[in-house]
Amino acid sequence: MQDSKPEVMEALSRVGITGLRTLVKINWNGNEYKFIPEIELTMDLPKEKRGIHMSRLVESITESIEEETEVKHDSLEELEKHILGRVKEKHPYNRAEILMKTALVINRETPVTKKKTMETHDVFVSVISDNGDFAKKLVVRVLGNSVCPHALKKSDGISHVQRAECFLEILTGYENRVVLEDMIECVEKAFPSEVYTLLKVEDEKHVVEKMFQRPRFVEDITRDVLNNAKKRFKGCEIGVKTVSEESIHRHDVIAEGFCRS
Amino acid sequence: MQDSKPEVMEALSRVGITGLRTLVKINWNGNEYKFIPEIELTMDLPKEKRGIHMSRLVESITESIEEETEVKHDSLEELEKHILGRVKEKHPYNRAEILMKTALVINRETPVTKKKTMETHDVFVSVISDNGDFAKKLVVRVLGNSVCPHALKKSDGISHVQRAECFLEILTGYENRVVLEDMIECVEKAFPSEVYTLLKVEDEKHVVEKMFQRPRFVEDITRDVLNNAKKRFKGCEIGVKTVSEESIHRHDVIAEGFCRS
Amino acid sequence: MQDSKPEVMEALSRVGITGLRTLVKINWNGNEYKFIPEIELTMDLPKEKRGIHMSRLVESITESIEEETEVKHDSLEELEKHILGRVKEKHPYNRAEILMKTALVINRETPVTKKKTMETHDVFVSVISDNGDFAKKLVVRVLGNSVCPHALKKSDGISHVQRAECFLEILTGYENRVVLEDMIECVEKAFPSEVYTLLKVEDEKHVVEKMFQRPRFVEDITRDVLNNAKKRFKGCEIGVKTVSEESIHRHDVIAEGFCRS
Amino acid sequence: MQDSKPEVMEALSRVGITGLRTLVKINWNGNEYKFIPEIELTMDLPKEKRGIHMSRLVESITESIEEETEVKHDSLEELEKHILGRVKEKHPYNRAEILMKTALVINRETPVTKKKTMETHDVFVSVISDNGDFAKKLVVRVLGNSVCPHALKKSDGISHVQRAECFLEILTGYENRVVLEDMIECVEKAFPSEVYTLLKVEDEKHVVEKMFQRPRFVEDITRDVLNNAKKRFKGCEIGVKTVSEESIHRHDVIAEGFCRS
Repeated sequence: MQDSKPEVMEALSRVGITGLRTLVKINWNGNEYKFIPEIELTMDLPKEKRGIHMSRLVESITESIEEETEVKHDSLEELEKHILGRVKEKHPYNRAEILMKTALVINRETPVTKKKTMETHDVFVSVISDNGDFAKKLVVRVLGNSVCPHALKKSDGISHVQRAECFLEILTGYENRVVLEDMIECVEKAFPSEVYTLLKVEDEKHVVEKMFQRPRFVEDITRDVLNNAKKRFKGCEIGVKTVSEESIHRHDVIAEGFCRS
Repeated sequence: MQDSKPEVMEALSRVGITGLRTLVKINWNGNEYKFIPEIELTMDLPKEKRGIHMSRLVESITESIEEETEVKHDSLEELEKHILGRVKEKHPYNRAEILMKTALVINRETPVTKKKTMETHDVFVSVISDNGDFAKKLVVRVLGNSVCPHALKKSDGISHVQRAECFLEILTGYENRVVLEDMIECVEKAFPSEVYTLLKVEDEKHVVEKMFQRPRFVEDITRDVLNNAKKRFKGCEIGVKTVSEESIHRHDVIAEGFCRS
Repeated sequence: MQDSKPEVMEALSRVGITGLRTLVKINWNGNEYKFIPEIELTMDLPKEKRGIHMSRLVESITESIEEETEVKHDSLEELEKHILGRVKEKHPYNRAEILMKTALVINRETPVTKKKTMETHDVFVSVISDNGDFAKKLVVRVLGNSVCPHALKKSDGISHVQRAECFLEILTGYENRVVLEDMIECVEKAFPSEVYTLLKVEDEKHVVEKMFQRPRFVEDITRDVLNNAKKRFKGCEIGVKTVSEESIHRHDVIAEGFCRS
Repeated sequence: MQDSKPEVMEALSRVGITGLRTLVKINWNGNEYKFIPEIELTMDLPKEKRGIHMSRLVESITESIEEETEVKHDSLEELEKHILGRVKEKHPYNRAEILMKTALVINRETPVTKKKTMETHDVFVSVISDNGDFAKKLVVRVLGNSVCPHALKKSDGISHVQRAECFLEILTGYENRVVLEDMIECVEKAFPSEVYTLLKVEDEKHVVEKMFQRPRFVEDITRDVLNNAKKRFKGCEIGVKTVSEESIHRHDVIAEGFCRS
């Protein structure tokens, strides 16, 4: 029935499944990592076909994951590319894309007391197959803060400070090496200060002082992230969005920019 | 079928509808107010009845709202009590409750330049009918900020600051006069400073200076709200929860307390 | 300070405020409507200016809303265009856009018993000012359902059914008359059946029978909405996304398409 | 400063951190499991102490997690109890509780074709230390569906069907063995049919037929879960909430119940 002609002949761009959660393992730098990502897998549908065989999409995911015990993919991108290839064996398409949303935990040290701390970031990893070419889209969401330089000047050394979140998105060819950890670093360096899960008294003092020595609008942060990413990653389309949860208002402020490297 | 005996004889405490959105009007202090609240309406179900006639609950809401053009309820509580009465005519219960979640807009002036500004708060208004007695539960969610007094001392006059949200919940007899605007004031006075939608440069300076003159932990804010509410409202069960979106961490801090007045 | 040169010279595309909630009134078909939308207002920022004066954006919103008592805008779009004009007097830009997210309540009758019912839909209304030209983007989110025609055939007259939500987005010139209520109708007609807040027994029977007489995949629904919108609205870019909350799976299925009219 | 007397002398019930995400490992049935839960850790605060030393709470979590490589906790509860013990060494309390929200992936087979499938459920695991006694609260959120028996009868074999979600909560002594997988089974058995991530055509037919052979209101589902849990787990307080995302309405229906075993 899915292969019959539809009543309305109109091509669709993205048809598939979304919000599927399952266990995936990858083998990154010699260590096994496990994730329970939320997965979206879609493909285009020509105007003369009524529907997608959705179970073939799910099956391509579950079969790829079962094989993983032997196959040992080195990254979520590699696993995603493999799934897109397996889908193609079961179901024709011109363009397909797969997205995995998950969390990445990074080991760090606190800035002064050098205690161990783990920092967790949201990451969104996509691979797109477009008429035989493969591209990838990587997004990291990193928390930090903004410190208003204008209020700091007007109020003689004090200012309003608040949590800010920044999304860095990179679209590039599949083969271009772009590491999520490096993307996170591009964002962290742009905030007035990095933030940490654990901060002892001396660490907290250090972070607070760094914040006030380096006051920044969301506009400054967004530009710095653009600049950091442009220098580090070549051949990419780069998008940045920073949102600051204003401590003196009920609303947020936002700054968005795009560039190519 | 709903009135038949269920296979498993177990009384249920709350059965009904949730997430229903519709237009309601009330007549508060001589002005007509319109809201599109999200409504939850539930009742208990004895063990020997299989189910609720859900459409009678919906009908009680829609009929009450239609009448409103003439009836002119003075508050959401009054409208809710009316709906609970109408439900009872259609459907027996021992205990029923209705909740409306909506937003309240309050006219204010900015602190220095005295410009007009409108401040919007989430409010949750419930009436409970329990074997003929009526109680009400009122919740306001108010945004503000926290300023760490400990970091302020350690870092010589600077500190980490962040947006904080505070929920004040009051459970009391239906007849006890408790005004949502007064509840909001109990919370706003407990923050280091009120926050505003509009702030010109001089207003912003005022707010920032007030915040640093009155640094407060979430614990301080929660205790002050408890205390403010205890003094203002008598014969109530009072609950307060404050959450601070830390600007130096990825996680939040929380402080909760309860008392009776 | 906002007008000074930034360290990193990079133009930004969208800088402003988001999540601001305030009361707005419009005068639609002779009736006054009140909303408490969530507002986003952004503009571009040239590479040689460090920042936006955020308070001028807020002021443009609040001043426009105050005037409303006399000005009587006929639609959210008209109010938004007015706000964009007022912003321009205070703050230069090449491109700016304003979005209001709110809910629209429509009076309906139940299909058989002809009882009054009110149906509430999310709407997202934007106006974009781009170098003197004005465009608008209108989005409606409408709930309905999907009924799997494949399972219906395989299982002899029964099937899996589920709630579905559909977003219809229209981008067109500001002057092109596109009514939100008509957009909602384009979506409702594409579902197996309309859904209602109130349904008496005979209404429910009617809706269930209609659903099974007209089984449809999300692909069918998306194509029908595209087709309905293409026929009704000329000179538009049309986007449709349907998501079905599968009752036999833990994940959703999705179908998206785009066309021009 | 935290140990000084507060201005307002009022005891607080729950003070601490929330929304902290970090990597934890447990050793369940001989296999290592990794999770990135969202953690909330709170304690009571007597009226004469101004605040909590929040960094000691974070440190208790991070240190416990580092040890895990050797300690090999057998469950999230065991790890949580260990964290509460470590907190007590650093910070006095009478009552403290720790919650971890995470996802559990269970291997299953599809009902007819016997293909492998992985099913993912949200779980919420808490341990409470109260004046030396330990209790635990376990919650599972399981997706399924509801099929209206009333419409099925009125419409001659067809009905409205929809996704439903059910929360089963169990509060019991720490030592009482309650397995999350068994809790999930108590819920799945109460739905008209289990749902699966993967379903081939024959599996789908089986699930659809099972759903229509066993039509059930949310009230029926809630009662069955109560009953299943009461029989399987002794010495527990049991709470159940089922929410059905109605396919013929814009709102949901809800049924909640409580019992002791």
